[in-house]
Amino acid sequence: MTRKPLFALAAATPALYAAGAGHGDGTVLFLLGFAVVLLAAKLGGEAAERLGQPAVLGELAAGVLLGNLTLVGVAWLDFLHRDAILAAMAEVGVILLLFEVGFESRLSDLVAVGKSALLVAVLGVAAPMALGYGVSAGLFPQAGWWMHLFSGATLAATSVGITARVLKDLNRTESREAKIVLGAAVIDDVLGLIVLAVVSGMVTSLASGGPAEVALGPVAVIIGKAVGFLAAAVWVGRFVQLRMLRFGEKLRVRGVPLVSAVSFCFLLSGLAGLMGLAPIVGAFAAGLVLEEADYEAYHAKEPPLDEYIRPMTMIFVPVFFVMMGLKIDLRTFGSPQVLLFAGLLTVVAIAGKLVSMYGVTERGVNRLAVGIGMIPRGEVGLIFVGIAAGLRVRGEPVFPGSVVSAMVVMVMLTTMMTPPLLQWVFARPRAAASGPGR
Amino acid sequence: MTRKPLFALAAATPALYAAGAGHGDGTVLFLLGFAVVLLAAKLGGEAAERLGQPAVLGELAAGVLLGNLTLVGVAWLDFLHRDAILAAMAEVGVILLLFEVGFESRLSDLVAVGKSALLVAVLGVAAPMALGYGVSAGLFPQAGWWMHLFSGATLAATSVGITARVLKDLNRTESREAKIVLGAAVIDDVLGLIVLAVVSGMVTSLASGGPAEVALGPVAVIIGKAVGFLAAAVWVGRFVQLRMLRFGEKLRVRGVPLVSAVSFCFLLSGLAGLMGLAPIVGAFAAGLVLEEADYEAYHAKEPPLDEYIRPMTMIFVPVFFVMMGLKIDLRTFGSPQVLLFAGLLTVVAIAGKLVSMYGVTERGVNRLAVGIGMIPRGEVGLIFVGIAAGLRVRGEPVFPGSVVSAMVVMVMLTTMMTPPLLQWVFARPRAAASGPGR
Repeated sequence: MTRKPLFALAAATPALYAAGAGHGDGTVLFLLGFAVVLLAAKLGGEAAERLGQPAVLGELAAGVLLGNLTLVGVAWLDFLHRDAILAAMAEVGVILLLFEVGFESRLSDLVAVGKSALLVAVLGVAAPMALGYGVSAGLFPQAGWWMHLFSGATLAATSVGITARVLKDLNRTESREAKIVLGAAVIDDVLGLIVLAVVSGMVTSLASGGPAEVALGPVAVIIGKAVGFLAAAVWVGRFVQLRMLRFGEKLRVRGVPLVSAVSFCFLLSGLAGLMGLAPIVGAFAAGLVLEEADYEAYHAKEPPLDEYIRPMTMIFVPVFFVMMGLKIDLRTFGSPQVLLFAGLLTVVAIAGKLVSMYGVTERGVNRLAVGIGMIPRGEVGLIFVGIAAGLRVRGEPVFPGSVVSAMVVMVMLTTMMTPPLLQWVFARPRAAASGPGR
Repeated sequence: MTRKPLFALAAATPALYAAGAGHGDGTVLFLLGFAVVLLAAKLGGEAAERLGQPAVLGELAAGVLLGNLTLVGVAWLDFLHRDAILAAMAEVGVILLLFEVGFESRLSDLVAVGKSALLVAVLGVAAPMALGYGVSAGLFPQAGWWMHLFSGATLAATSVGITARVLKDLNRTESREAKIVLGAAVIDDVLGLIVLAVVSGMVTSLASGGPAEVALGPVAVIIGKAVGFLAAAVWVGRFVQLRMLRFGEKLRVRGVPLVSAVSFCFLLSGLAGLMGLAPIVGAFAAGLVLEEADYEAYHAKEPPLDEYIRPMTMIFVPVFFVMMGLKIDLRTFGSPQVLLFAGLLTVVAIAGKLVSMYGVTERGVNRLAVGIGMIPRGEVGLIFVGIAAGLRVRGEPVFPGSVVSAMVVMVMLTTMMTPPLLQWVFARPRAAASGPGR
């Protein structure tokens, strides 16, 4: 008789838990995870800075450490890999980062380097694709050409997050090199999307027994949507933002400028996502159309917007980099065969993006810095690899597991090497800083 | 032949989408939803302030509006009800709010009103329970006593979020009334948990054919955990926080004090959740042990912590109140029978909490303000109702649908009426402000 009520209470526990927590245990894990990630980010950043490296490298390394604790028997942090809310917060982090960087960039400066940015982006997609195809074809002559093509496509990605962050930490966001890289990265996102659409379309057509043809219509639609979005974001966005500022000036309630800036950023990010573009492209555009001068004209009594946004970026941006590090599985480094192919892929990945620096038409620009800025594959690269891993043609996976692992290693290495390389290239003596050639 | 590739591209679309968005469409919807919620919050807050009402009332109303747009045929915002990430952000909002309020409260002040807070909390649970039992028994004499008991238990909840926010907006966080209400609300959370454990245990025991007995052991465990957590949070928490501050002083990397404060807040919130308490109890405790004086001693060069946290609370706190408003379904107001029972329940809910003001033992305290501060049921009330709606005894639901709807209306009314009432009670002339009686 004393057992029954005990059992009854145990049966009621989920309900009690929900009542006590006021919420599911999802939130509880998220809160603990967020705290752990934040502390790890700061400790990692501190360690990196003491070693003379950019803080972001330490944040990535802290993520690698947290993500691989299972290898030494610590399993209780495994939930970090699966927490959807934490992943969304990482996303908010990179969105706020690109918004901040966009806000610090002037649209006119970006248009001024537009030609270079376009050339850098095109070279930065074409060269790695060609080189990747070559390496894949050389090493796996028996595999289908579609595997080589997709290997090349995987190398085309650029993760602007890492570069943007390092440029910010080095106070170089205003430099012409920064403008070219940022502009090229935005264009690169569109080009990457088109390449992926075309290549996936061909492979999926093959998979269903059809020919390796691609209808031009849908590809044109993708291009149209991307270009249309960017144009609309800049022209309509600027009009909307000015209206919002003018309207916000009349409001009495607290925090209007901050809230309107952040919601404008999230709105454009979400719209970019709806268009099939990366949300960070929208965030960058939102920052771009918001000019410090307009903001100050309408909100003279408020603190400057960048001071207002900084506490948010201080909290959320490191979460993005720790979570990126978390995705790196050290076990992929265990196989010599994988490492060999990974080494080759990485060399080609670096070379292909370095080629892009010859797209810079301006004089006096540190071209090597532009080329290095294009190297990191980051989370975009991981997404490409994830799609590659899932591809099947006639029931067979296109990529053997070892190739997928090698691609993951390539993404990691290009991501981790960029921060110290960028720091080095900007710290070089002035004489060499105008870049190689011409 | 032209059909196939088109189909192929369509088949690849989810993958493309994931690649383009860099993420699932979950994030895209979240970003758009966040932007809409933020804008609605500011417009609602502005409208309320222009009508001489607290901004939070406008945020709640904006949420009600957004949440009931389907009634006028607008369905595309329906996802706001289901977005898990947005719900988590609302949670982060109320956690940051209670952290901020805790930071502005001094532990010694809270201990000084400890006796009053305890009495107010006990009365604030006992009186609504007794009154709720009575109303339920009077209106539904044929129903089981367990339904009356649970009706009473549902009235025992207190949502400290609303009161804390209004007190902040009125600059009254430092007042003795505020300390008593905040202290009582924390104790109330623990008491509510115990009541729910006991009542649910009895009902579940009945449901499985057992007697309506409750083993004292598990209840003692719940009490022990709750009291233990709060004691540990205050004593150990203070020690840990001081260590963190001292350690953080030695670090070179940016943003250490902000990050350590926020991660400490999230850590204690998460631990509170693990203990089965509401995370906001942990957040309040985290703010309580963090004293401005310590913070300034260690981080003299940094901006004051409250200035640092404010941009975050400006963004996240309104999200909580809009999302709370969103849960209010206006269709429940459609039935006269429901409205009658709801009216009675609401009167009893108000009366029960007003009784708690006689727990104030100090002189010169505005007791009516304390009583009103305890009225809102908010999200805690909704959780209680949710559990009530799911209860079954011998296969029959304990609560008919109309009673559940009436309870929801009671929660809404007590939540929406508190902000204007609190504003009114604090604005009354000084003579009357010392409260009724004695």
